[in-house]
Amino acid sequence: MKIAILGYGVVGSGAYEVAQAAHNIEVKRVLYKRPIDELGDIVTTEYEDILKDEEIELVAECIGGLHPAYEYVSAALKSGKHVVTPNKNLVAAYWDELHDLAREHGAEFRYTASAGGGIPWLFNLQRQSRSDDILSISGIVNGTCNYILDTMHNEPVDFAEILAKAQELGYAEKDPTADIGGFDTQRKCVISANLAFGTSISEEDVPVFGIQNITAGDIKYFNEHGYTCKLLMNAGQTETGAYAYVEPTLVSRGALESSVPANNNLISLTGNHIGTLSFYGQGAGKYPTGTSVIQDVLDIENGWKFSDKSEKNDVSVDNRLEAHRYYIRENGSCKITGPLSVTEAHRLASESSDEHFFMAGIRE
Amino acid sequence: MKIAILGYGVVGSGAYEVAQAAHNIEVKRVLYKRPIDELGDIVTTEYEDILKDEEIELVAECIGGLHPAYEYVSAALKSGKHVVTPNKNLVAAYWDELHDLAREHGAEFRYTASAGGGIPWLFNLQRQSRSDDILSISGIVNGTCNYILDTMHNEPVDFAEILAKAQELGYAEKDPTADIGGFDTQRKCVISANLAFGTSISEEDVPVFGIQNITAGDIKYFNEHGYTCKLLMNAGQTETGAYAYVEPTLVSRGALESSVPANNNLISLTGNHIGTLSFYGQGAGKYPTGTSVIQDVLDIENGWKFSDKSEKNDVSVDNRLEAHRYYIRENGSCKITGPLSVTEAHRLASESSDEHFFMAGIRE
Repeated sequence: MKIAILGYGVVGSGAYEVAQAAHNIEVKRVLYKRPIDELGDIVTTEYEDILKDEEIELVAECIGGLHPAYEYVSAALKSGKHVVTPNKNLVAAYWDELHDLAREHGAEFRYTASAGGGIPWLFNLQRQSRSDDILSISGIVNGTCNYILDTMHNEPVDFAEILAKAQELGYAEKDPTADIGGFDTQRKCVISANLAFGTSISEEDVPVFGIQNITAGDIKYFNEHGYTCKLLMNAGQTETGAYAYVEPTLVSRGALESSVPANNNLISLTGNHIGTLSFYGQGAGKYPTGTSVIQDVLDIENGWKFSDKSEKNDVSVDNRLEAHRYYIRENGSCKITGPLSVTEAHRLASESSDEHFFMAGIRE
Repeated sequence: MKIAILGYGVVGSGAYEVAQAAHNIEVKRVLYKRPIDELGDIVTTEYEDILKDEEIELVAECIGGLHPAYEYVSAALKSGKHVVTPNKNLVAAYWDELHDLAREHGAEFRYTASAGGGIPWLFNLQRQSRSDDILSISGIVNGTCNYILDTMHNEPVDFAEILAKAQELGYAEKDPTADIGGFDTQRKCVISANLAFGTSISEEDVPVFGIQNITAGDIKYFNEHGYTCKLLMNAGQTETGAYAYVEPTLVSRGALESSVPANNNLISLTGNHIGTLSFYGQGAGKYPTGTSVIQDVLDIENGWKFSDKSEKNDVSVDNRLEAHRYYIRENGSCKITGPLSVTEAHRLASESSDEHFFMAGIRE
C-alpha cells in the first residue's frame, strides 16, 4: 500500500522510520514545509500533490493541532483515502463529522495513537467491545503528569521545580497547560469513552481538575497514608446514564496504577465478560507513537475492519451518578470528605476562593 | 459464521455464552458426552456430525489434553475448517504440525486463550511483531502460582496450607504439579516465544524450576529486602542466540509484576521500536477464557489474517547467554550469588542433594 505522511516532526519521522521495517507499506510522499535531505524528492510542500495522487491510498496525518489538519483529513476522506492520525485534538473535536465522512466515502479512519501513544489501547478497546459490554474505562494517559507525580512521590521536590525539569527533558511543553491542567487527558477520555460506549460525548461533558496545585505537602500526606496520586481519566456506564471526568486520584500503593513509573501510561477497561484488562507502555515518543500509527496502517492494509454499528448509543453524561471520597485542601487545611458526587466535588473546586485549592478523588 | 464447540466444561460453556452476545456467530453444534438440557438438539456425541457438516466453518476445541483433541483438531484442519483452541498442551506439543496443516489446507489456526487466558496477549504479540522486532518476552502466566505467592507475601502462611486453600477455591487442580512445578508456564513460554521470534522451540528447550519448595521463611526474607517473588516465563533474543526459561523471580516492590494480585496474569513484550508493552488481566476462568476463544473466532469471521512469513527463524536456545544473580537456599542456609548463567543455576538445582532446595532469579 502506498501512503503519504503529513508532517515530519517527532511522530511523523518516527512513523516514517517504522514504516521502513514493515512489509507492504511504501511511503510515497511526505508533506513538509522544507526539503528533507535524506528523503529526497518524495517530500512536497503541496498537499494537492498527495490528494490528487490516486496511487496513494492512505494519509497519515502527523501535523497535530486543529488546522490545517482538519482540512487535510477531511479532504483525504472525501477523496476516499483512508486516514490514520495520532491527533487527539482533531479526533475529539470532530468525532462525528470525521466518522461520518469516512463512512460516506468508504474510507477507514483510525487513531489508535491518539490515546496511549504506543499502547494498542484504542485498538483493543474496539476489539474487546465486539463480544463484551464495556462497563468502564480508566487510566493514566498523560506521561508528563505521571513523570511529575512519580518524581514527587520519590523525592521531596516542589511542583514548580519538577515541572521545570520535565520541560528541560522534553517531557513537558513550554506551555504545559494542556498536560498539567488535564485537558490532554480530557481529550483522550472523550475518545476512549466514545469508542467504549458507542456514543459521542464532547470535551465539555468531561469536567477536569488538573495537578498544577499539588504540593510536596500533599504528597507527603499521601505517602504517609499508603496512597499514590495519579492523574486519571475515568468513564463508565450505569443503568441510568454515564459518567466521565478527569481528576487526580489516590490509589492504594499496591494498585497496578501505583507502579507506573516515569512518563509511562496504563489504561484499563472493565467488560461484562472479561473483567478488567490493563494495557501498559510508553504513552508518547517518536518510535512508540510512530509504531501505533503504522500498526493502524497495517490493519487497514490487511483489511481489518470493525463492523460499523450504525446505531449510536444515546448516552448522556451525568456526573451526579458517580460518588466517592475526596482529599480536599482549601485555605491551608486538608480533610478527607465522605462520598461526594463528581459534580459536587468539581463544583466545590470551581467555586473555591482559594487559588491554591487542591483535590484528589479516592479510589476505594 | 456457523461454528462448533468441542467440549462443554468451564471454557466450552463460557465460549458458548460469550458467543450468544456476539453478532454473526451461530453455535450450530456442541460436542459433548451427554445431553445438555438448555442446548437441546445442537448437542452431539459424534464428532463426525460436525466434521461432515459443510456449513460449519470453524471448530473451537475446548476439550483440553492431547487426545482426542489432537485428532479432532487435525481432522478439522484437514477438512479446511478453521480451528480455535485454548489448549496450551496441544499447541505447544504439535506446533509445527498443526501450523503446517492449517497452511496446507487454507485454514486459520488461532490459540490466543492458550497463554494468558482472557488477556489478548498472543494476539497483540503477533500484531506487534508486524512492525517491530520482538527482543524479549516475560510474564506471570499462571494464576495458581500467583495466587499462592501473593497470599504468602501478604500473610505468614505455609506453602502446603495455601495450596490446599487454592485447591478448595478451585484455583488449583487436585494434582497441582503442572501449575506449581512450572510446566503450565513452560508451555505458555514455548508458545509465546515461538510467536515472538518466529521459530519453533519445544518444551525440552525451556528449563523449569517451580515454586513447590518455597517457604514462609523465604518469603519473609524477600519482604524484608524489598522483593516480591513471582513465577515468570522469560525468553529473549541476543545477537548470538536465544534464551528461554521458567523460574521464580525476585522483582522489586515497585515493579509492575509486583502489583499483580490473586490469580491474575501480567505479560510483557519488549520490541525494538515500541519499548515495553504489558498486558494485564484474568489468566483463566469461564468468561475470560471463553471471551478470548470467541475473539479469535470473530477475528477469523472478520477475515483478519496475519501474513504468513513462511521462512522460519532458525533460533536455538542457549541458556548460557543469560546470566543474573540468584537467591539460593540449600541445606538450610541461603545466599545471594553473583551473576550465574541460567544453565548453570538450573544445573545446580537439578544436581542438589537437598530435596528442599529453592532458588529464585533476581531481576536487576
